[in-house]
Amino acid sequence: MLSFMNDYSEGAHPQVIRALARLSEEQNAGYGTDRHAQRAADLIRTSAHIPRAQVAYTFGGTQANALVIAAALRPFEAVIAADSGHINVHETGAIEATGHTVLTWPHEGGKLTAEGIEEILWSHSSEHMVSPRMVYLSDTTEWGTVYTKAELAAISEVCRKNRLVLYLDGARLAAALTSSANDMTLADIASMTDAFTVGGTKNGALCGEAIVLCTPELFPDFRFMQKRAGALPAKGFAVAAQFEALLEGDLYFRLGEHANRMAGQLAAVLENAGVTFYQPPVSNQLFPIFPGVLADLLVREVEMELMMPVRGGSVCRLVTSWATKEEQIEAFENVLWNLTRDKGIGE
Amino acid sequence: MLSFMNDYSEGAHPQVIRALARLSEEQNAGYGTDRHAQRAADLIRTSAHIPRAQVAYTFGGTQANALVIAAALRPFEAVIAADSGHINVHETGAIEATGHTVLTWPHEGGKLTAEGIEEILWSHSSEHMVSPRMVYLSDTTEWGTVYTKAELAAISEVCRKNRLVLYLDGARLAAALTSSANDMTLADIASMTDAFTVGGTKNGALCGEAIVLCTPELFPDFRFMQKRAGALPAKGFAVAAQFEALLEGDLYFRLGEHANRMAGQLAAVLENAGVTFYQPPVSNQLFPIFPGVLADLLVREVEMELMMPVRGGSVCRLVTSWATKEEQIEAFENVLWNLTRDKGIGE
Amino acid sequence: MLSFMNDYSEGAHPQVIRALARLSEEQNAGYGTDRHAQRAADLIRTSAHIPRAQVAYTFGGTQANALVIAAALRPFEAVIAADSGHINVHETGAIEATGHTVLTWPHEGGKLTAEGIEEILWSHSSEHMVSPRMVYLSDTTEWGTVYTKAELAAISEVCRKNRLVLYLDGARLAAALTSSANDMTLADIASMTDAFTVGGTKNGALCGEAIVLCTPELFPDFRFMQKRAGALPAKGFAVAAQFEALLEGDLYFRLGEHANRMAGQLAAVLENAGVTFYQPPVSNQLFPIFPGVLADLLVREVEMELMMPVRGGSVCRLVTSWATKEEQIEAFENVLWNLTRDKGIGE
Amino acid sequence: MLSFMNDYSEGAHPQVIRALARLSEEQNAGYGTDRHAQRAADLIRTSAHIPRAQVAYTFGGTQANALVIAAALRPFEAVIAADSGHINVHETGAIEATGHTVLTWPHEGGKLTAEGIEEILWSHSSEHMVSPRMVYLSDTTEWGTVYTKAELAAISEVCRKNRLVLYLDGARLAAALTSSANDMTLADIASMTDAFTVGGTKNGALCGEAIVLCTPELFPDFRFMQKRAGALPAKGFAVAAQFEALLEGDLYFRLGEHANRMAGQLAAVLENAGVTFYQPPVSNQLFPIFPGVLADLLVREVEMELMMPVRGGSVCRLVTSWATKEEQIEAFENVLWNLTRDKGIGE
Repeated sequence: MLSFMNDYSEGAHPQVIRALARLSEEQNAGYGTDRHAQRAADLIRTSAHIPRAQVAYTFGGTQANALVIAAALRPFEAVIAADSGHINVHETGAIEATGHTVLTWPHEGGKLTAEGIEEILWSHSSEHMVSPRMVYLSDTTEWGTVYTKAELAAISEVCRKNRLVLYLDGARLAAALTSSANDMTLADIASMTDAFTVGGTKNGALCGEAIVLCTPELFPDFRFMQKRAGALPAKGFAVAAQFEALLEGDLYFRLGEHANRMAGQLAAVLENAGVTFYQPPVSNQLFPIFPGVLADLLVREVEMELMMPVRGGSVCRLVTSWATKEEQIEAFENVLWNLTRDKGIGE
Repeated sequence: MLSFMNDYSEGAHPQVIRALARLSEEQNAGYGTDRHAQRAADLIRTSAHIPRAQVAYTFGGTQANALVIAAALRPFEAVIAADSGHINVHETGAIEATGHTVLTWPHEGGKLTAEGIEEILWSHSSEHMVSPRMVYLSDTTEWGTVYTKAELAAISEVCRKNRLVLYLDGARLAAALTSSANDMTLADIASMTDAFTVGGTKNGALCGEAIVLCTPELFPDFRFMQKRAGALPAKGFAVAAQFEALLEGDLYFRLGEHANRMAGQLAAVLENAGVTFYQPPVSNQLFPIFPGVLADLLVREVEMELMMPVRGGSVCRLVTSWATKEEQIEAFENVLWNLTRDKGIGE
Repeated sequence: MLSFMNDYSEGAHPQVIRALARLSEEQNAGYGTDRHAQRAADLIRTSAHIPRAQVAYTFGGTQANALVIAAALRPFEAVIAADSGHINVHETGAIEATGHTVLTWPHEGGKLTAEGIEEILWSHSSEHMVSPRMVYLSDTTEWGTVYTKAELAAISEVCRKNRLVLYLDGARLAAALTSSANDMTLADIASMTDAFTVGGTKNGALCGEAIVLCTPELFPDFRFMQKRAGALPAKGFAVAAQFEALLEGDLYFRLGEHANRMAGQLAAVLENAGVTFYQPPVSNQLFPIFPGVLADLLVREVEMELMMPVRGGSVCRLVTSWATKEEQIEAFENVLWNLTRDKGIGE
Repeated sequence: MLSFMNDYSEGAHPQVIRALARLSEEQNAGYGTDRHAQRAADLIRTSAHIPRAQVAYTFGGTQANALVIAAALRPFEAVIAADSGHINVHETGAIEATGHTVLTWPHEGGKLTAEGIEEILWSHSSEHMVSPRMVYLSDTTEWGTVYTKAELAAISEVCRKNRLVLYLDGARLAAALTSSANDMTLADIASMTDAFTVGGTKNGALCGEAIVLCTPELFPDFRFMQKRAGALPAKGFAVAAQFEALLEGDLYFRLGEHANRMAGQLAAVLENAGVTFYQPPVSNQLFPIFPGVLADLLVREVEMELMMPVRGGSVCRLVTSWATKEEQIEAFENVLWNLTRDKGIGE
């Protein structure tokens, strides 16, 4: 069945598979002390212009988020996030499991704002309340949008003024940096945050996230924290070798670009059919508002996520990936055409 | 450099790599709800004779241990382990991080005994102390030994009499079940425990552990616990497909057998040279006692772990794997021969 | 200096002090197994018509809240509260410290509503999110208001339909049940909740809160949980004897009534001066809106809490207690008169 | 019934009760910011010669231990204790509940040794294990013994050399410093530790422990940690005023001396009857070995704790307190005499 359900349905890009196959013929040191780990870290440090950054590898995104946050905070300290943030909504309390509170502010187009951060700071002022000490962003956001350089700079400045650690969840970093709405480089992000992740799982890797600590002294004894969290893989090289394959010769960004281009074609198909969007379609996650019962009819033929009802219809999520093919877009167009041709859409 | 450092230095067996490569051409459902997860679970259930068992997939062993233990215990409940147990020594407090105490008893040849469990039960009797509720075993143990069927039966009986949940860490289960000292089948283990893991990382997989809940009702809402622990991989199929490849046609056990056979040849080399063992050499981890300064001389040419000094020498750990080649054993023999030929060993 | 800062500035009522003095001449069993604990529990069970309830004693309110919540929930389960709830705002993450998420809904007059609970239930539906399992209310609320019987009944019904544990924080229960806006008895509360506290600290006790488990089976092994939380006082009798003194002959409610009556006189003084209220003045916490700079002038002569600025003035909190004297109200009236006599208030 | 069950069976010393009674006529600031808190802290700082120490007040000992340990450690750090230590045995996992491991070493007469600490340090050397960072002692110990100045100095030196935080649990500090085996002053303890507690609950207070942070910078943001742990009492003055009463004019130490003197008389009674001791009787906890069935006969007439069977008899615990009267010792002597007069003891 045709599926735009998510961007983690496929295995790995063939170049990644080849890199994994080569590992069977080598012996590598354990726990991320190997030369693949070193090489992938160097590639990240060079392209992000952060020679002193520390790089670590974990298998999953929730694991990475909980680890980075717990490594930076003292027990009574809290992390600020948009209310739509992954750590607030979709991690089943993984942050609270480490003892930390997530302080939320209503998102604007999926994004947290410098003003929201300041409001939270203003209202948390004594030992009778948790102490905000970190800011969590995701780019692309959970609503498929991206931060502009000016927005990130404003947030970064609030953080530096108020001694807040700034962490950017880059599970979909490739889609963010190749979005039509993006005006940042990897180096821009690295210069304005204290830590970020480079997501592999959703962009060509079999599995794995690279954690980049731009300001390593804010995350002391990180390897102890990794091990305690079950996030220091014995075969760290199995994750690192994937990033090595993705980061040499720009494969990582070409895959992100492809996912976005496919999403762009999909968005055009939807717009041609008169469908509008809940959030502007700028990356590989689209949030069309299907009028009337159209969403219910579509999900019989296309896998996608129903997000929520709105007046006159339903918001859905359609996601493309590095592996999406043009034929899938065309197939979707046919399904949509068949469902809507005999009548005005949504009537 | 010649290395017997551990059994997680190599990538994956070629059949596993091929299975991973095929995933790039499919779309699979997320979070372990896919058909590879189903198929691998069926293979485990069938060969272990536990039709109603629940199977889950995680990336690492520490993650699996912390998850299984936290899923079974209420906050004030504790897990009993041999003092040499992995959860007590080498997980940087991952169990305590979930709020639970590890109660230890001195190991006998790496093993916990039914008597030790009863002693701990006897001395924990009121609300002023933690309440023992679970037993943790590893097979093979951290000292390379294996449980006999009689030993496990005795422990299992103590557990059932005292409402203790019995969990067996099978990070090296393939080596255990193909050990010369083993008299159990997978079905024996399944019938006597409430949960066990089938370790992939150390036996042919790129990464991954299968968690088998024989008595699923003792681990309620396990998927919620997985997600909260960052142990519900988005691409669960990437782990499951590896187990599918390993468990079809007995590859998993053939790889364990190979590792043990290589260890047997290595042990023979050592014995021929007059080296004795700290623990009997029955699986793929060997613990020779190198006399005098021999260990210090060897580590310049062979990677291996120095465990501890003993009277007259040093205990080391040498590990073979599914990927160890006979030439490596021969190379070791040469190194050892060169170091010892001109003089009686250890003099 | 004249103070309406809070209701925990004084020691204990003389009858409580006498009960404490008598303890020096007795020997009592430890950890709440004594006859004072038994007697106070019987008094609560009888007056609340809950013969099978279990009663426990702790020193503080934050301790009681964290304990009751952790005792009822599995790790991935969450508690629902109004965003103004004490556990969400003023406990420095004590709930998250036990690993649990607080899910909030905007308060209405300090209160949570049945509709708010249903909205949260509706949006938390899978293992990718925490699972709501408990509801936290406080009566009186943090804004000095009280629940009506109809409001509590509606919430209780939502809870029972959805298997939610209902917990009512009674740190100011005496003020609630003797409020002019109250239409409930202690037995009403006991019949509609699974647990509640009877607050001593703010109503005549030196220190201490009684935890009443109306449905003890929802809080299994509670004494183990108490001890682990440092909330099983060795001298449980020292807390219990205070409740014994307060609950015999209605002292507890007479003290609450006194605090409310003093607050009523204080509210009349304020209303006579033309001051309006942010929330209706129905219990011992008043939230007047002082116009212009009046709040800034007042705090030089009267201790009170500045809550927040509003258009045209400031919301403050003034609190009376069992120990407030009429002379203090009169003194406040004089201060207010002197500050406002020469000009229209707030101009 | 005659009882030597423990030293927390009585209420408070009359001078403490009078201090509590006076509080009803005052208004004091909340959360330990009052003048009683200030005054009691000054008394401690002066008598311990630590002008820059920070003092905090909590209700119970388990609460104090868990708080002090959690305030000093990062998540992967562990605390070293004798295996007989209260935090290891009798706190139902309260330390592990904060995520920290207790590393134990076999006690010698209830005491931890400098050598034991060094052994643990030696064997914990990488990120695969927890990192020892703190040492927990109790004085008197759980076996009624006391540290000598030389023993504490040796431990203190190991701690300073290895950057370990040294914490002494003084739940029975009065008994320790007035023991016949003691050669230390309060100032000695303060100069050699980073934190200690002054126990009130077992020595004349109604309830309460004073936490003394000799090196406050090792416990940053302590008030936030207190509040989060439910250990920042709203009526901090209710605890502080008790310490003020105990510490003015040496009442605290006179009460400890009295308890020890009563224990000395009790020990003499036992020795006269031919009873030997499991640990030397030097403080208010005695551990006689009652031969044969004598313990079983005694507990019918005297409340005391049965500790454990030994060859030929049973070890029991008898405890005296500030409130023990000479008549109680005489009554015990009569009971013992009646049970043993017709036959040689233990035959």
